[in-house]
Amino acid sequence: MAAPPASDLEAQIAELTTKVHELKTCKQPFQAEQKQLGELKRALNVSQGGNAGKKDSAGKGKLTLKTPKGTKDHGPSATLMRKQIFSTLEQIFLKHGACTIDTPVFELREILAGKYGEDSKLIYDLQDQGGELCSLRYDLTVPFARFLAMNQSTYPSIKRYHIGKVYRRDQPAMSKGRMREFYQCDFDIAGNFDTMVPDSEILCILVEALTALDIGDFTVKLNHRKVLDGIFELAGVPADKIRSISSAVDKLDKSPWEEVRREMTVDKGLDGEIADRIGEYVKLKGPGKELLATLQADAKLMAVPSANEGLKEMSILFDYLEIFGVLGFMSFDMSLARGLDYYTGIIYEAVHASSAPPGISTSPAVPAASSTIETCKKPKKKAPTAGEDAEEEVDESQIGVGSIAAGGRYDDLVGMFYEASGGKKGAGRIPCVGISVGVERVYSIMLAQRKAREEREGRGKETQVYVVAVGGDGLLKERMALVKELWDAGIKAEFTYKAKPKLQQQFDTCDRDQTPLTVIIGPKELERGEVRVRRQVGKEAGAGEGELVQRDGLVEYLKKEVLL
Amino acid sequence: MAAPPASDLEAQIAELTTKVHELKTCKQPFQAEQKQLGELKRALNVSQGGNAGKKDSAGKGKLTLKTPKGTKDHGPSATLMRKQIFSTLEQIFLKHGACTIDTPVFELREILAGKYGEDSKLIYDLQDQGGELCSLRYDLTVPFARFLAMNQSTYPSIKRYHIGKVYRRDQPAMSKGRMREFYQCDFDIAGNFDTMVPDSEILCILVEALTALDIGDFTVKLNHRKVLDGIFELAGVPADKIRSISSAVDKLDKSPWEEVRREMTVDKGLDGEIADRIGEYVKLKGPGKELLATLQADAKLMAVPSANEGLKEMSILFDYLEIFGVLGFMSFDMSLARGLDYYTGIIYEAVHASSAPPGISTSPAVPAASSTIETCKKPKKKAPTAGEDAEEEVDESQIGVGSIAAGGRYDDLVGMFYEASGGKKGAGRIPCVGISVGVERVYSIMLAQRKAREEREGRGKETQVYVVAVGGDGLLKERMALVKELWDAGIKAEFTYKAKPKLQQQFDTCDRDQTPLTVIIGPKELERGEVRVRRQVGKEAGAGEGELVQRDGLVEYLKKEVLL
Repeated sequence: MAAPPASDLEAQIAELTTKVHELKTCKQPFQAEQKQLGELKRALNVSQGGNAGKKDSAGKGKLTLKTPKGTKDHGPSATLMRKQIFSTLEQIFLKHGACTIDTPVFELREILAGKYGEDSKLIYDLQDQGGELCSLRYDLTVPFARFLAMNQSTYPSIKRYHIGKVYRRDQPAMSKGRMREFYQCDFDIAGNFDTMVPDSEILCILVEALTALDIGDFTVKLNHRKVLDGIFELAGVPADKIRSISSAVDKLDKSPWEEVRREMTVDKGLDGEIADRIGEYVKLKGPGKELLATLQADAKLMAVPSANEGLKEMSILFDYLEIFGVLGFMSFDMSLARGLDYYTGIIYEAVHASSAPPGISTSPAVPAASSTIETCKKPKKKAPTAGEDAEEEVDESQIGVGSIAAGGRYDDLVGMFYEASGGKKGAGRIPCVGISVGVERVYSIMLAQRKAREEREGRGKETQVYVVAVGGDGLLKERMALVKELWDAGIKAEFTYKAKPKLQQQFDTCDRDQTPLTVIIGPKELERGEVRVRRQVGKEAGAGEGELVQRDGLVEYLKKEVLL
Repeated sequence: MAAPPASDLEAQIAELTTKVHELKTCKQPFQAEQKQLGELKRALNVSQGGNAGKKDSAGKGKLTLKTPKGTKDHGPSATLMRKQIFSTLEQIFLKHGACTIDTPVFELREILAGKYGEDSKLIYDLQDQGGELCSLRYDLTVPFARFLAMNQSTYPSIKRYHIGKVYRRDQPAMSKGRMREFYQCDFDIAGNFDTMVPDSEILCILVEALTALDIGDFTVKLNHRKVLDGIFELAGVPADKIRSISSAVDKLDKSPWEEVRREMTVDKGLDGEIADRIGEYVKLKGPGKELLATLQADAKLMAVPSANEGLKEMSILFDYLEIFGVLGFMSFDMSLARGLDYYTGIIYEAVHASSAPPGISTSPAVPAASSTIETCKKPKKKAPTAGEDAEEEVDESQIGVGSIAAGGRYDDLVGMFYEASGGKKGAGRIPCVGISVGVERVYSIMLAQRKAREEREGRGKETQVYVVAVGGDGLLKERMALVKELWDAGIKAEFTYKAKPKLQQQFDTCDRDQTPLTVIIGPKELERGEVRVRRQVGKEAGAGEGELVQRDGLVEYLKKEVLL
């Protein structure tokens, strides 16, 4: 068995060393992380001394206990928090009338091939084991388009959300939330409808969702493919360079204009004057209606048909967004271009306030050729070393890489699948518009905010009552009978599996799990037909013995206490 | 691009043809399935005339629009039903104090290697793309054991559930619910506790879960590895044959004794007398305490230490099961052996009443060497052909293959991982006991029951109110403003994205989606500050115009109507 690269473990050790240091600095509990660090170091030791050539007495190589590179386990508290994120989003999607579907985690290789441009090299392939060639899905949009192309008669239109894992063989940066296996949360509306109506509901949903997630201020950058194409045409970009210039413009959220201009001219061979003409437009951003008015007053731009159409659609959209009460969250941003080729209309990207480059704000129509853009250079990545002041590390996850949701209109994808499978040209076209929420990024932000508030790690379970035995012989059967009554009444309850448990251990478990109530049984009270109920957390929690309650009225009593 | 085997599509077409026939026979709507059949036939046509050598004008092969063999998409109604199954199970798990974790969908290949015996050939491997060698997880138990071995200091004990997809390159039988990608739903308790306490809670949870799923009667077969090993030792089975004889015994739920005896003697070389001695025991089954008494009165068996220990543990278990009120669901069944090697103690399997072989019931201690077992021969599989009477097909999914949940105690798995990774021998042992609910099987049963009740397909969405426009110019902006009010109040509402919708089309959508209420707006009523609210489904649904309600009191009115 091949030895895994020690560098993965070393990177994790480095990361965790920094984390332990941070926790100590912030006076937070760090013992759990420190223990984990010890385990990682042991694993590194084993992998360096163990796996690398060393074998056990049976002649077998040693096993590496780790998850694959770029993937991770999520423990109880993390998983519960993530489930709450999904649940918040789901409630909003259902409120807007969406259904949900499920698709397989892998697709026929040919379905995914050629859909992701340069990123296609990041697709995970399944091994050829004699059957069909398959690959792990890279996103949820291509599977959706395939589903639509296959089910056109059943679903000529559909409004669906899909929360699921996707797979990309990227270079992982775990602290930034860039992983190889991660959740996406998509909401799409497919079907032939009137201009901008579903598009406006998508943006309304986006604002509701990000608001409900309560992670702080955000801005939604909006642009339109047709407007961009019009700008390029006006500037004189040759047709065959439009996509590659588009992809250069897209980097303006992370790189200064000078660098982007250099890429366009030096790397991509664009004439300097053309690049400058583009620059005049793509620096423009601001509240929707104002910038729209500015652009619609630009006669040269309005003379280009695609720009004219795009701006008309933006105008309709802004009216609808105003009705939905979300126009104030929007920034009409000429520098937004988005990487994927399949967008055909409106495009958008939600940016969290914490990740805006310093100086880049949502102020109206500020020319980007100012010191603010120029100071936003791509930060140098500094590897964390144990002992170094964690604050000095440039936190790349906080600057420039800030998209927490993105999407747009993509009218031709389904039809392309349909035709590619032999369907009649033009017959299978279903226009689509959608949004993908970056739940991993949202989760990273929530974690960071929780840490900053010095909050205790969230519960991993929902237990309401812990049944404790005092004295006697452990009263195991009595505890079991009691807890069974609680379960039958729908109360979330636990007891220890020790036959003769120590009192303190039971309370420690309660404490660790943040269980709000205990029911305490002891031989004397049981004889009298009584038990004690005690609050463990909250304002009324006390060191006292708890309240005496009749054993046979316990469920009723708890339902009042527990439901309050 | 290689052409996919046409046989997959042909199998699907055959299956769907039968389904259409069944629906017609049961006088149920079949148009959707019929349309789908047309699409499949078109795909087959394309694949036979298209992919197989034929190329389009650009010289490319044609795309096959399908999901990979053994996988499927799940549409809205199916997905909602499945989510409800998961949710029902989750509520019970949480009630019993479980947390949940998540692990990656693929593991290092070496983690999975060698854990599944003969079934290891069914593991999906990821292609070697220059990094670590990985495979898709085959179950949720091995990842759990790895997690525990990696996190011993944080979780010396844990009670966790995990609902996730697993992957097996099996021969699919879609109608039986045997797929290559399917959900498992596991609940496990890990840690050093007193004998049979957590084991009894697992069985209590199992009974609560299967009862809550409301799919009909079920029986839980129980046995104990130590008892089985004791029986084999008493019968004289050579030590090196114990596992393979165990695996033969396990087939008694599907095959008659004669066939199993033949496998033991002819295939596996066991002496006929030894086989017969085994046969005397493994035919025994019955309510726990009675059969226990019978076995504990068997002096020869009790003289074998492992049988003695095992029976002692069963005795303790039955006492606890009685306290939990679930003993009546149990059948102490000597023929239950379970395939996996890693079980070390109690083992169990829940069988749905519908899938018990004919004549095999839960009657006490019925000798299996009777005509009942002998009539239960392995049914011949008959491929469905279009036009054949669907009732004549032997439905293999209903006979013999009936396990809807299974599990047991496995005390050595975590320690094995720990040692294999270089840990000190004996140091990393964490005893575990758990259950895996076969949610796909449960889902198949629910679907079949729903069909048998001739119920309409379940809703795929939760929309409560549909906003309809009558007359005017379509009143798009008014509908948008109104629906926004509803969303802000948390009401689940939709409207059509058509600017000028036809009235009937809007009501048809309502009907199709089974949306309970409409709010109808028209120019005249709006001028008067009124709208109409109408019930669409249920006893009060009428053909009338609906009730006039004040526009500005609409939300309050609906909250009363909608919440009732």
